[in-house]
Amino acid sequence: MSATEDTVHAAIGDVERFCRAVFLAAGTDEATADAATRAMMHGSRLGVDSHGVRLLDHYITVMTGRVNKRPNITVVQSVPAVALLDADHGHGALAAYRGMDKAIELAETCGIGAVSIRNSSHFGPAGAYALDAARKGYIGAAFCNSDSFVRLHDGAMRFHGTNPIAFAVPVAGQRPWLLDMATSAIPYNRVKLYRSLGRELPAGVASDVEGRDIRDPSLAEMLAPVGGEFGFKGAGLAGLVEILSAVLSGMRLSFDLLPMNGPDFSTPRALGAFVLAMKPGAFVPEDVFTAGMQRYVEVLRSSPPREGMRVMAPGDREWAIAEERERRGVPLDPATREAFATLGERFGLETPTLLP
Amino acid sequence: MSATEDTVHAAIGDVERFCRAVFLAAGTDEATADAATRAMMHGSRLGVDSHGVRLLDHYITVMTGRVNKRPNITVVQSVPAVALLDADHGHGALAAYRGMDKAIELAETCGIGAVSIRNSSHFGPAGAYALDAARKGYIGAAFCNSDSFVRLHDGAMRFHGTNPIAFAVPVAGQRPWLLDMATSAIPYNRVKLYRSLGRELPAGVASDVEGRDIRDPSLAEMLAPVGGEFGFKGAGLAGLVEILSAVLSGMRLSFDLLPMNGPDFSTPRALGAFVLAMKPGAFVPEDVFTAGMQRYVEVLRSSPPREGMRVMAPGDREWAIAEERERRGVPLDPATREAFATLGERFGLETPTLLP
Repeated sequence: MSATEDTVHAAIGDVERFCRAVFLAAGTDEATADAATRAMMHGSRLGVDSHGVRLLDHYITVMTGRVNKRPNITVVQSVPAVALLDADHGHGALAAYRGMDKAIELAETCGIGAVSIRNSSHFGPAGAYALDAARKGYIGAAFCNSDSFVRLHDGAMRFHGTNPIAFAVPVAGQRPWLLDMATSAIPYNRVKLYRSLGRELPAGVASDVEGRDIRDPSLAEMLAPVGGEFGFKGAGLAGLVEILSAVLSGMRLSFDLLPMNGPDFSTPRALGAFVLAMKPGAFVPEDVFTAGMQRYVEVLRSSPPREGMRVMAPGDREWAIAEERERRGVPLDPATREAFATLGERFGLETPTLLP
Repeated sequence: MSATEDTVHAAIGDVERFCRAVFLAAGTDEATADAATRAMMHGSRLGVDSHGVRLLDHYITVMTGRVNKRPNITVVQSVPAVALLDADHGHGALAAYRGMDKAIELAETCGIGAVSIRNSSHFGPAGAYALDAARKGYIGAAFCNSDSFVRLHDGAMRFHGTNPIAFAVPVAGQRPWLLDMATSAIPYNRVKLYRSLGRELPAGVASDVEGRDIRDPSLAEMLAPVGGEFGFKGAGLAGLVEILSAVLSGMRLSFDLLPMNGPDFSTPRALGAFVLAMKPGAFVPEDVFTAGMQRYVEVLRSSPPREGMRVMAPGDREWAIAEERERRGVPLDPATREAFATLGERFGLETPTLLP
C-alpha cells in the first residue's frame, strides 16, 4: 500500500479553522494560534506536507511546557538595521512572522534589515516567512537550525540539522520566486516514505551509523548533505545556517539541542533563527528591478528542457500544487486524521469534513 | 603526462611583485594594480588556482578597452545600510574590495550593510572579499554572476554562470571559517583537466548539448548545477546569486553577458556584484559569538570521520594549502609561465624566479 493511497482531502478553510480552534482550546493566545496555523497552512497549501498540518498534534503536545502558550515577545534595537527578538519560548512561527515584520520595518528605512531570534521553538516551513516579505514587495530570507540529523561531508556523526535556507523575491504581476531548501540531500520524510514502501533509496543520500552510504532505508542513521560528491558545499551551507541561526543568537547548536520529538516536552529548546529583508528600491529603481526579475523568470520558463523534463522557476512547482489544493483541498494522511479525531474529541471541536 | 607534473613554483612575494609591476606597466592606476594582484594572490595562495595568477594574462588583455585602467569609482548612499557602487568599468577586484570596505563601514554603524556593485568586470575569487571582512572581525559575503555555462536542473541550455557564493566568519584566535563555492556541480577547469588527462568525469556533473549526462569530458557543453538528483537546489542558489548580483544592480543576466574570453575585449561587460557585511556584536555580545564559533568548529574538527576521510571546517583545506605554499611557493603551470615570459619581455620586467 502506498503512503498516498489512504490519503483523503479536506477543504483548506475547514482545516484552517480547526487548527486555529485547537490552539485556542489548548490555551494559546490569539497571536500564537494565528501564526502557527498560518505557517502550517503554508506547508499544507504549497505541498510542503512535512511542515503542514501534520504538525498540529506535535505543536499541541509541546504546549505542555516546552513552548510558552502566551509569550511576551520583545524586540530590542540598538543599531539602525538590526534587531533582536526574544520569543520568550513561544511558538517559532509567531517569532518568525514577528521577526520578519521587524526586518521589513528596518529594510523600509535602511534598505536592508536583519533580525536575530532567540528563545524560540520549531518554526516549521522557512519559506513561509521569506514569502511573507516577498508578498509585501521585499526580498525575504529565513534560516533556522534544527535537530542534528545530517552528517558532514567526510563525517560519521549526526552533526547539522536539515538546516533550511529560504529566499523569496517579488516578481511584479506574478507569484514570487521562492526557494525553500533543506541543506540535506533529501528530507528525512523521504526516508520514512521509502521505508514504508520497501523501496531503495537513491545512492549518496543517507548513511549508516559509520557514515557509509546505504540504499536500504531501514539502515538510515543519518542523511548526507546536499551535493553528492561535492557534499562539502551542502555541509558548508548547513554550517552557514547554523552560524546565522544559533551562533548569532547565542542559542544552541544543532548537536546541543534537545530532540524535537521528546521524550522531554517540558524544557524549552532554546532555538535560534535568523530573518532578513531587503527593499529592492533601495538598490535599483523599482522599474529596473521589475524588468530584471521579469526577464529572468521569462527566459528561464521558456528555455529548452532536457528530454522529458519541464523547466520551472523556484516556487513554480509549489504554486501549481497550491492551485490544485485550492480546488481539491489539502491532504490528510491517516496519522493526521487520527490525531485530528483525538484532538477534536479532547477539546469538543468538530473535525474538518473529508471531501469525496 | 598529468597536468601537475610540469608545474613549477615561484616565491609568493616574487610573483606578487611581478603581477603588480605588469599592471602598472600596462597603465593601470596603483589601486587597480594592488586590488587585482591581491585578489589573484588570494587564489594562488589558497589553492583556488582557477582564480589565481593564471588570470594575469587575461586581465592585461582586457585593459585594452573592456576594463577601465584608471576608473573613477563612485559610491552613492541614500539609506543608512545600503550603498551603490559604480565601478566605472574598472577591475572587478577593485570594485569588490571597495564595496566590502563600504559594507563594513555600514555594518559598523547599522549592524549590517549591503553594497550593490554596477558597471564592474570579472572579480575573480569571491572568497577574497568575504575573507577581507572576516579578517576585520565582520561576517562577510560576496556574490557575482558570470558567463552562462551551467544548465538548469531540468534545462538543456547554458543558463547561469558558475555563480559563486562566498561567506567568511571570524573565529577568535583562529583562521576564519570560509565557504567559497560555485553553484555548479564542478568547476569548468575540472572538465578541462579531465579532458587533458583522458579521464572520465563523475556521473551527473556535465551534459552534452541536449542536456544529457555525459562522462566523456570532450562532449561537455554545459555543467550541471550542484545537487545531483536534487540539482534544483543548486540551480535555485545560482538564481539567488543572479538576482543579488545582476537584478539588484540593474546589470546583465548571465545569459546576456558578452563572453569573458572574447573575441570582443573592448566593450565593457556591465557585470554586477553584491557584497554584504554583518557585525557580530550587533546581534549578540562579542564573547557569546566567540564562544559559539569556537564550540562549533571545535566539535566539527573533532567529530568522527567516515572511513579513510578527515573532517575539515570550510576553509581548512585552503589554509593547509596556504601554509604549504608560503614555504614552497605558488605553482605556475606551463601556460602561465609562457604568458609571464611574454609579459615580462613586453614590459621589460624580470619574471619571477622559479624555485628548484
